[in-house]
Amino acid sequence: MEREQVYNFAPGPSTMPDSALKTAAAELLNFRGSGMSIMEISHRSALFQDVFDSACAKLRSLMNVPETHEILLLQGGATTQFAAIPMNLIEGGTADYAITGSFSGKAYEEAKKYGTAHIAANTKSGGHDRIPSQEELSFSPDAKYFYYCANNTIYGTEWQYVPETAAPLVCDMSSDILSREVDVSKYGLIYAGAQKNMAPAGLTVVIVDKSLAGRELPCTPKILSYKTMIETGSMLNTPPCWCIYMLDLTLDWVIAQGGVKAMEERRQERAGLLYDFLDNSRLFKPHALPGSRSYMNVTFRSGSDELDAAFIKGAAERGLVNLKGHKIAGGMRASIYNAMPVEGVKALVAYMKEFEVSHV
Amino acid sequence: MEREQVYNFAPGPSTMPDSALKTAAAELLNFRGSGMSIMEISHRSALFQDVFDSACAKLRSLMNVPETHEILLLQGGATTQFAAIPMNLIEGGTADYAITGSFSGKAYEEAKKYGTAHIAANTKSGGHDRIPSQEELSFSPDAKYFYYCANNTIYGTEWQYVPETAAPLVCDMSSDILSREVDVSKYGLIYAGAQKNMAPAGLTVVIVDKSLAGRELPCTPKILSYKTMIETGSMLNTPPCWCIYMLDLTLDWVIAQGGVKAMEERRQERAGLLYDFLDNSRLFKPHALPGSRSYMNVTFRSGSDELDAAFIKGAAERGLVNLKGHKIAGGMRASIYNAMPVEGVKALVAYMKEFEVSHV
Repeated sequence: MEREQVYNFAPGPSTMPDSALKTAAAELLNFRGSGMSIMEISHRSALFQDVFDSACAKLRSLMNVPETHEILLLQGGATTQFAAIPMNLIEGGTADYAITGSFSGKAYEEAKKYGTAHIAANTKSGGHDRIPSQEELSFSPDAKYFYYCANNTIYGTEWQYVPETAAPLVCDMSSDILSREVDVSKYGLIYAGAQKNMAPAGLTVVIVDKSLAGRELPCTPKILSYKTMIETGSMLNTPPCWCIYMLDLTLDWVIAQGGVKAMEERRQERAGLLYDFLDNSRLFKPHALPGSRSYMNVTFRSGSDELDAAFIKGAAERGLVNLKGHKIAGGMRASIYNAMPVEGVKALVAYMKEFEVSHV
Repeated sequence: MEREQVYNFAPGPSTMPDSALKTAAAELLNFRGSGMSIMEISHRSALFQDVFDSACAKLRSLMNVPETHEILLLQGGATTQFAAIPMNLIEGGTADYAITGSFSGKAYEEAKKYGTAHIAANTKSGGHDRIPSQEELSFSPDAKYFYYCANNTIYGTEWQYVPETAAPLVCDMSSDILSREVDVSKYGLIYAGAQKNMAPAGLTVVIVDKSLAGRELPCTPKILSYKTMIETGSMLNTPPCWCIYMLDLTLDWVIAQGGVKAMEERRQERAGLLYDFLDNSRLFKPHALPGSRSYMNVTFRSGSDELDAAFIKGAAERGLVNLKGHKIAGGMRASIYNAMPVEGVKALVAYMKEFEVSHV
């Protein structure tokens, strides 16, 4: 069974590498000669532990994760981390939150349940079209951590610098993890829902400085304790085995492509093609300001809801699917994660040109 | 690619229906002609919502879930529910817990964080070899709910009756859901990790009386609020799409086999073969007492650790795999969930006979 040629610009779940999908299909009924599917194998078996360890080792190597940090493979998505982070780290004190989009705002709201959440910056008044500068960040004394979302999937902005803070950095990298080189040692905690650059939905990667674990509030569910998950090797209970398996296959693909450095070069090429076109377009306007633009989610609009709808419909007819913007942002959004081939972006730009010529 | 003949007695993740696995493999690269894998499709798309709705409708029909109850498809496993249940239902008051094994004990420990957990019964002194009778259950006045685990995977015991209680019944059916007919209207909440009878690990089904929602403690993470999950159709955030898809395929198989009634007949046949043999064996002894025996997990031992090890090794050589008991119970355990064919149990009994003849 071959795939039809569709370029899928969905924001997550999203395009995955063909090689990972093909391997998964080929061995779905019989994993490594066991006579069983990977889905049927005990998470306590050597066969599965090998997959788990392999995924962690590849992630550690690809991201150069220092030994001071543990890699946890969990369930629950970013929304679970919105609560788990303050439950584990705020200690009833204060944490600083930079609100640059929808998800950092949700994280801030959740943190207020467990301590004092201080707004370090908020770009809402400008429609979240930019990232605040270092100078704009307001810090509270004795903050337990500084929280930010590296890439704002809905608005299409991305931090181009690492904030300098006295408190440990906590970062939601759900939509740009593995797409650029990151100095993990600068972070107290990095986490990411897997469904954009890593694996199918249902897996959350947490990379946490082990020295920050063990400070959870008494009300913290055991399953949300980083300390417990470190002690149990992410297996206090049954982990999302299939997603971890798919992560391992996806990391094989990242390695084969040349690692994170190659992913970063490709994302620059993909996003560059789109922003170059948008900056010269007589019809389409990008949402994010230069210097704050996301390499993962390119948001733009024509200025007319009718033209936007016509564009999205015409794109889908050409196999360029899921370009509709998020309902709270409107317009169009091209999500161009690691597994999106440059050819997909070229096809999109070609269609944008064609559409512009016939609608200006 | 065909499967080799292996009978997999793993306690979960565990054997899945061949038909579900074959369909998944066949359409993994191209779901319903979309040109995309089900893993790449947005959870907000009509294509995925259709899968989600289909799984819920089949579950509702198969289990005869009344309209008073909502079906939630969540992440986090039973261990997450150990906390979510008291956070949502205990209201700072008291709840009764029947401790009949490892997991109900863990649920009890977690509940103590959020209110007063009263031990309604505890079978630990007998090595959890039986289920308490109705008369043995101790109720606290004004309990917010009565909690029990329908089937104890580790010890191989199962409740053969529904406790009569003044408080709403809350039941962990992780290892026997869909294997027997249940009057859902008797329950305030039923939940089950999917990885035994329903889907791969990473999905938790919660069936909750809607009138019990909305009572969560202030410290409850939003993701653990039943009210929020009811309001968002289980999609406050991205659900575990692949597992939900596999649930839908597995439910197709249950329906094709004749539904829950057929599952119940088969489980009686499977467990009957094993217990009949065990009750007449000169070598093997079952752990659970008659009247408390599990139809899903049959636990037994030879009386000698060496013979147990030899038995497990010899079984594996015959393609009867994962028969080793849980480390805290020892001995052997045959987990015989819905997808285990009767032929697998017959092959196991034949080997037990052969082993007995040569070792007594």
